[in-house]
Amino acid sequence: MKEKLAELKRRLLEIDDLNAATAVLNWDQTTYMPPGGAAARGRQLATLSQLAHEKFIDPEVGRLLEALRPYAETLPYDSDDASLIRVTQRQYDKSTKIPSELLGAFYAHSAAAYQKWTEARPANDFTAVQPYLEKSLDYSRQIADCFPGYDHIADPLIDFSDEGMKAESVRALFAELRAELVPIVQAIVAQPPADNSCLLQAYPEADQLAFGQKVIKAYGFDFQRGRQDKTHHPFMTKFALGDIRITTRVKPNDLSEALFSTLHEAGHAMYEMGIKPELDGTLLANGTSSGVHESQSRLWENLVGRSRPFWDHYYPELQAAFPEQLNAVSPDTFYRAINRVERSLIRTDADEVTYNLHVMIRFDLELALLEGSLDIKDLPDAWQARYQSDLGLQAPDNRDGVLQDVHWYGGFIGGAFQGYTLGNIMSAAFFDQAVQARPTILSDMRQGDFAALHGWLKENIYQHGSKFTANELIEQVTGAPLAIAPYIRYLRTKFGDLYHLA
Amino acid sequence: MKEKLAELKRRLLEIDDLNAATAVLNWDQTTYMPPGGAAARGRQLATLSQLAHEKFIDPEVGRLLEALRPYAETLPYDSDDASLIRVTQRQYDKSTKIPSELLGAFYAHSAAAYQKWTEARPANDFTAVQPYLEKSLDYSRQIADCFPGYDHIADPLIDFSDEGMKAESVRALFAELRAELVPIVQAIVAQPPADNSCLLQAYPEADQLAFGQKVIKAYGFDFQRGRQDKTHHPFMTKFALGDIRITTRVKPNDLSEALFSTLHEAGHAMYEMGIKPELDGTLLANGTSSGVHESQSRLWENLVGRSRPFWDHYYPELQAAFPEQLNAVSPDTFYRAINRVERSLIRTDADEVTYNLHVMIRFDLELALLEGSLDIKDLPDAWQARYQSDLGLQAPDNRDGVLQDVHWYGGFIGGAFQGYTLGNIMSAAFFDQAVQARPTILSDMRQGDFAALHGWLKENIYQHGSKFTANELIEQVTGAPLAIAPYIRYLRTKFGDLYHLA
Repeated sequence: MKEKLAELKRRLLEIDDLNAATAVLNWDQTTYMPPGGAAARGRQLATLSQLAHEKFIDPEVGRLLEALRPYAETLPYDSDDASLIRVTQRQYDKSTKIPSELLGAFYAHSAAAYQKWTEARPANDFTAVQPYLEKSLDYSRQIADCFPGYDHIADPLIDFSDEGMKAESVRALFAELRAELVPIVQAIVAQPPADNSCLLQAYPEADQLAFGQKVIKAYGFDFQRGRQDKTHHPFMTKFALGDIRITTRVKPNDLSEALFSTLHEAGHAMYEMGIKPELDGTLLANGTSSGVHESQSRLWENLVGRSRPFWDHYYPELQAAFPEQLNAVSPDTFYRAINRVERSLIRTDADEVTYNLHVMIRFDLELALLEGSLDIKDLPDAWQARYQSDLGLQAPDNRDGVLQDVHWYGGFIGGAFQGYTLGNIMSAAFFDQAVQARPTILSDMRQGDFAALHGWLKENIYQHGSKFTANELIEQVTGAPLAIAPYIRYLRTKFGDLYHLA
Repeated sequence: MKEKLAELKRRLLEIDDLNAATAVLNWDQTTYMPPGGAAARGRQLATLSQLAHEKFIDPEVGRLLEALRPYAETLPYDSDDASLIRVTQRQYDKSTKIPSELLGAFYAHSAAAYQKWTEARPANDFTAVQPYLEKSLDYSRQIADCFPGYDHIADPLIDFSDEGMKAESVRALFAELRAELVPIVQAIVAQPPADNSCLLQAYPEADQLAFGQKVIKAYGFDFQRGRQDKTHHPFMTKFALGDIRITTRVKPNDLSEALFSTLHEAGHAMYEMGIKPELDGTLLANGTSSGVHESQSRLWENLVGRSRPFWDHYYPELQAAFPEQLNAVSPDTFYRAINRVERSLIRTDADEVTYNLHVMIRFDLELALLEGSLDIKDLPDAWQARYQSDLGLQAPDNRDGVLQDVHWYGGFIGGAFQGYTLGNIMSAAFFDQAVQARPTILSDMRQGDFAALHGWLKENIYQHGSKFTANELIEQVTGAPLAIAPYIRYLRTKFGDLYHLA
């Protein structure tokens, strides 16, 4: 049994090496690669992914897992070996249930759809991508149908990124959340918007980057095991537990862009940096779901990085870094600026309160498309109708409407968006538990000390990697299934205070 | 036949993708990787190399080559397809004649020897590496013996990097060269050394890099298909013909370090950037030998970059970039400084005239070790004796003596050094032909215009990649086998003028 386990680990490590190489090539492509490298890079990435996939769906992997199951059952559920066998089996089943030809055809189609979208969006041309989206929807249904027995056709697709979550339970949670959010948004936007002009001044790039790095170092981002570079779209990537990188982009006239994307990506990175080293090179050395991952990025970006205690400590330091821009700006004005709430068209620019409304619109439209109650051709109108009803505004064109997000144009229709809002909900649920367990967290933050918070997160969430599903982890940490109450309480307290709501 | 050729190319492309990924991971390791990434990176690199090797020695590759040979014989020798089949066959034979276990054992030993050397060199401890070197010598002999029928046991090892070159012919060429060089060196070092203090001032890093990049852009280095980053040891690497990168290091108090390493590596890079695009993704899309590669780096570094016509154009620009450091320094003083000749201990710091003496010492010692006329334990003394007789000085310790170069500690003993001097000899032979064919080259250089030279090199050398061996290429370009005459003429003219030699 020991030999079979060693053989399984050896194979997984080889696959992990190939996946890590893919990640390095992707990182290089978006950070430093000269334009002439693009064509070959696409091919190199395809070759590496294909090899890793072939090695993972090798029937010998299935036989090893089969042979190891009885052994796993003798071990505690949360032991490294039992978890490895369980999680690998689940991933193996998912990977082998989809015929390779179908997956290959879908990837080829996705690449073409993405390419078409990059042209169609600036041209505001939905009809150019419509046939691609129709085909993507068809593929999404076919791939969902590889997992018969689902309650809702979106369930298998949701399961890819948020294992164990289902359309109906997410829908119910989101309906509950929307009922709470809409009146808060209405009450806030009835008031004059916060003045954010202090953020929109000239801020030198190097100083912006230096300040962000100083903060995340204090958070606990380990620069011996990571670094930050510039890209067009910020992201986090991992090459091994000892090499986890983040990227950001800098707007010379908007302080919030680089700073909050840095705090966000550092949250993703610290999650994976905190996974116990023994899990490195296996499927367990990853965040467990897109929702839990997002809970960590949003926790460090918003619950910490846009909080009053955080800025009680850091605002004087920020003023010292940018005296010309900020010496005349009061802490109150700055705090209101970084927490300005407004109805807007673009999800990625949205504030904490309205952000989830953007996500829910997309989630509902995905479900309607998959169910067949909405046709692709009617998607632009449906999008506009929902923005009108939920956010009270309409995009002037499809560019900032249905063509806004890459997700549907480079992947499945279904399962693409729920993680963002699940993450927000979880971030407050986890933070609540942390503060209950370590009551000094808020006063420590006021001193620029994040050790208690980081330590609690590491102990209760990070170290486990993907041993537990999101639902298991939430039960374990909060003692109950995911609930919106802590999140609503958080929003009500923070924004009630900021906007003097009843 | 078309299908077999397509299948061969498909397999080679997959192998090329894996090798490119290895190159990206190596590049990242030396440029940006945080320290925490080191352990996993070593393993990832080993996995990728192993996969590429397995795929290349697959018997199906041998069968395809076998089946394609009759087809290749119907094609012109220099056609893309005939060359691909011929060169791949040669490489396949080399790769399959060495048993995988032997190669694997050697690589494992090399990694350990290299590791030991990194500790032994600073500790000046030859005895620590002596057993490793003994084993390396044993492996080198075993691997040479995989190619029975050689004239000299070093021939197969020389052939790995300089295909077609043999110990005896290289030895003869080097003996002829030494006979010419020694009196030149003696005549020069009898005179007071040139004053190079103008180079040893404070030069800001960013300005050094900017100046070097301006020059190589004028040379024809294509920044759309390449870039420059900083590393501890400068190198050139290729991920595809559209993505070829160089690195450099900057000494804040020595202008020559970054500048000449930039010109050197750009020479390597322009060679591969000039390979015809149709050869991309095959074994033909490489420089053809270490000697020819070095001829291009040395040509752009020395024959161009340390020449009087070059500095007639660039010295005013250099002064404009560094007015405080250079406005009081005459062009003559500067030109003498960058061409200062002196007896020295360190090969990589040596000037154009003495450099080859360093190389020949190593080459002769390698042959003696392989022949068995010198034991590893006597190597330090033999090293010192040769430095005394050839360069008239002795290293104060082994650190700057026999422990100086990494080559023997990270690879074979044999075939490691001859390429450097072959490259110098070739650089003058090729440059001579270029100037004869395009007589404006020297006057163009005086205008900062390198198009005629670059164009000639591309047409006659670069575009062919490794279609022709070094010997074939030299015959084709110069009409005769490699001769030292042009190189000696070049050195005599340049340094005769600088040092007023008879």
